[in-house]
Amino acid sequence: MKGSSIADLESLAVSATDQALARIDARERSIHAWVQVDADGARQQALLVDKSSMSLPLAGLTLGVKDIIDVGGMQCECGSAIFKGRQAFSDAPLVARLKALGMVVVGKTATAEFAYLSPPETRNPVDTAYSPGGSSSGSAAAVADGHVSAALGTQTAGSILRPASFCGVVGYKPTYGRFSRVGVLSASPSVDTVGWFTKDVKTTIRIRKALTGAMSAGPAVRLGLCRTVHWSKANEAMRLAVERIAQRLSASEVSSPTAILDDVHATIMRHEMREELATQFLQSPALLSTSLSTYLGGDPISQTDYLAALDYRDSFDVEAMFAGNDVLVTPGACGEAVAFGSTGDPCFNRFVTLLGLPSIALPFAVGTKGLPLGLQLIARKDQDEMLVATAAHIEARLIAEHGSLDSLPFAV
Amino acid sequence: MKGSSIADLESLAVSATDQALARIDARERSIHAWVQVDADGARQQALLVDKSSMSLPLAGLTLGVKDIIDVGGMQCECGSAIFKGRQAFSDAPLVARLKALGMVVVGKTATAEFAYLSPPETRNPVDTAYSPGGSSSGSAAAVADGHVSAALGTQTAGSILRPASFCGVVGYKPTYGRFSRVGVLSASPSVDTVGWFTKDVKTTIRIRKALTGAMSAGPAVRLGLCRTVHWSKANEAMRLAVERIAQRLSASEVSSPTAILDDVHATIMRHEMREELATQFLQSPALLSTSLSTYLGGDPISQTDYLAALDYRDSFDVEAMFAGNDVLVTPGACGEAVAFGSTGDPCFNRFVTLLGLPSIALPFAVGTKGLPLGLQLIARKDQDEMLVATAAHIEARLIAEHGSLDSLPFAV
Repeated sequence: MKGSSIADLESLAVSATDQALARIDARERSIHAWVQVDADGARQQALLVDKSSMSLPLAGLTLGVKDIIDVGGMQCECGSAIFKGRQAFSDAPLVARLKALGMVVVGKTATAEFAYLSPPETRNPVDTAYSPGGSSSGSAAAVADGHVSAALGTQTAGSILRPASFCGVVGYKPTYGRFSRVGVLSASPSVDTVGWFTKDVKTTIRIRKALTGAMSAGPAVRLGLCRTVHWSKANEAMRLAVERIAQRLSASEVSSPTAILDDVHATIMRHEMREELATQFLQSPALLSTSLSTYLGGDPISQTDYLAALDYRDSFDVEAMFAGNDVLVTPGACGEAVAFGSTGDPCFNRFVTLLGLPSIALPFAVGTKGLPLGLQLIARKDQDEMLVATAAHIEARLIAEHGSLDSLPFAV
Repeated sequence: MKGSSIADLESLAVSATDQALARIDARERSIHAWVQVDADGARQQALLVDKSSMSLPLAGLTLGVKDIIDVGGMQCECGSAIFKGRQAFSDAPLVARLKALGMVVVGKTATAEFAYLSPPETRNPVDTAYSPGGSSSGSAAAVADGHVSAALGTQTAGSILRPASFCGVVGYKPTYGRFSRVGVLSASPSVDTVGWFTKDVKTTIRIRKALTGAMSAGPAVRLGLCRTVHWSKANEAMRLAVERIAQRLSASEVSSPTAILDDVHATIMRHEMREELATQFLQSPALLSTSLSTYLGGDPISQTDYLAALDYRDSFDVEAMFAGNDVLVTPGACGEAVAFGSTGDPCFNRFVTLLGLPSIALPFAVGTKGLPLGLQLIARKDQDEMLVATAAHIEARLIAEHGSLDSLPFAV
């Protein structure tokens, strides 16, 4: 999308699609972000977008879809041998809506097995010795490496925010329950949330606006620094970088929410994943990874403990956690990306997912290994507009100071 | 299942399956309860059950599955031309668990289009001039007509309790959220609940116990008669029959919950169905029925109204509604089955579904047309054990007084 002449506009979607396919062609051998690319289908869809008599708000944007989300006629294998050959009959509603708004679906991105822990072959584009994080590994990597404008992911613990941090892209998890999960693998329905990755906050705002029609809001007035009980798990670079930006944003320190939230999340997630994946556990146990098989097996969570966990969550004092602030800032992950072979620790994202709060990660510094660090912002339920406006504000300041997001400063 | 000799036990599942298939063969031409019957698959599964080295708690029971719920390798067309040829890759977890417990899946039962209003061809087995109710039409009819021991249904407004009432069978809707909805069409995820139909309460208790392992509870001590704001919509026979049984159960009258609950349910359901069926509305509008197309079209519910509806629901005073009682009794429907061609009015079930409360319908009298009337019982969340025990208690009294459920008295 280099200009805006009439000729360019007439082939906006086709150009973007060709560019995406060329980039994938050049880079996929190193990155392994994709499990299926549908070049013909994407070009056909792009032609329709360019021919549309309406001006489609997302025309010119290309999309990758995590392979636990249905795209009609494409595979949906959820990173598991059990689903080998499984095809989606129709688009997930969120995919259908994005297509109708002008986005072109290029293909399906690699995911950890059933969006849990066993990572796919995807490499971190910043340095292929490192993990892109997970479980939305391919989506984060595909956006980071410039294959597509955006990619859908899902978060049950930290599967959007953590890979966004590791890959140096923007990852957005909307308020729980606001976008349909039809056609999306259900892992833990009390917390599962669909969101997406983009290179910059502006593109996330553009997509959100097209989907919701919501009016933009101003950025947060009061920001809080929330170290969380996991602060000591963050490495030095992350801690320094978060403290520095918190100071520059005049963020006041708030008390860390109790570690009980992590136990509550673990109880709900394990109980629900046992229910949701019962078919695979009962009928194809030998095709599950050891980690997932172990997780789903063993003693069940009692109904009493499960209900107590839901109750704890529902009566948790979110207002006290915000302490009068509009948005909280925390580390997006423990630090830079971990080595290839694991997906990293979601400890900074887990309580946010449990509470259903909208959150966004954006790159804001560089660690000692030269890999990006991500900042996590959290808002109250349904304060998504203010959240993304705050992220845009911070991003704009970073760009103003450093020229671009590609030249962020070393934290240490 | 006529006896319990060793020979009988060795072929318990096969006998039950053969009996089911024979009955379907004899009756289906009149009833149209099924959209797919897999005789070979059912026999194979039955052989495995009979050969199992374990004593399976549900061996000898046959199952029909509403055609909005996945059974691996079978169709799942949701009563819509849009899903023509759609096949399920794997079992819904609830189906997988019931199979593992020894139940044999005989086939898929007819459903209203996308579990909404447009009825399938299914007839009420008690009198084929009448509707079996909906949207779980085929499941209710298949059980009522003795095709299978049980059938899965779903309820978003009144799609289990109403057809149970119309067909003279037991219909059970568990507490919201307690059984997985993976592999089940999502219509309105804040209220959608999977449940089932059986001929008697005993079989429902047997299935529930096998699935949950929960200890049985005693029946309700205190019962309340809840006329609801729709009392005047119930016909004379229903009103008299409910008043009579309430008196015999020493049920004290409670205040009717506000009619606002119906508006709140309508707001949530319409907003969510628009989201969940967005793909069909965007991509195949011409293949939707006029009623569904009209429902999904038109002005959207605003986010503000939707969130206000969820808030109203979540802060509704359920305790005040129960007024110290353990179980409430209400009509299961407005009266006897309506004429073939419509599915009837869910007004007595809607607020119960909205509040996520467990409920059960059981036949308890006969109306002026000679068709059954159903009584609805409602308990607090997670009081399912007490609810079904109460239903069993009432059923036992009816049988003791009238010889069998097939000879219930005329209400008027």
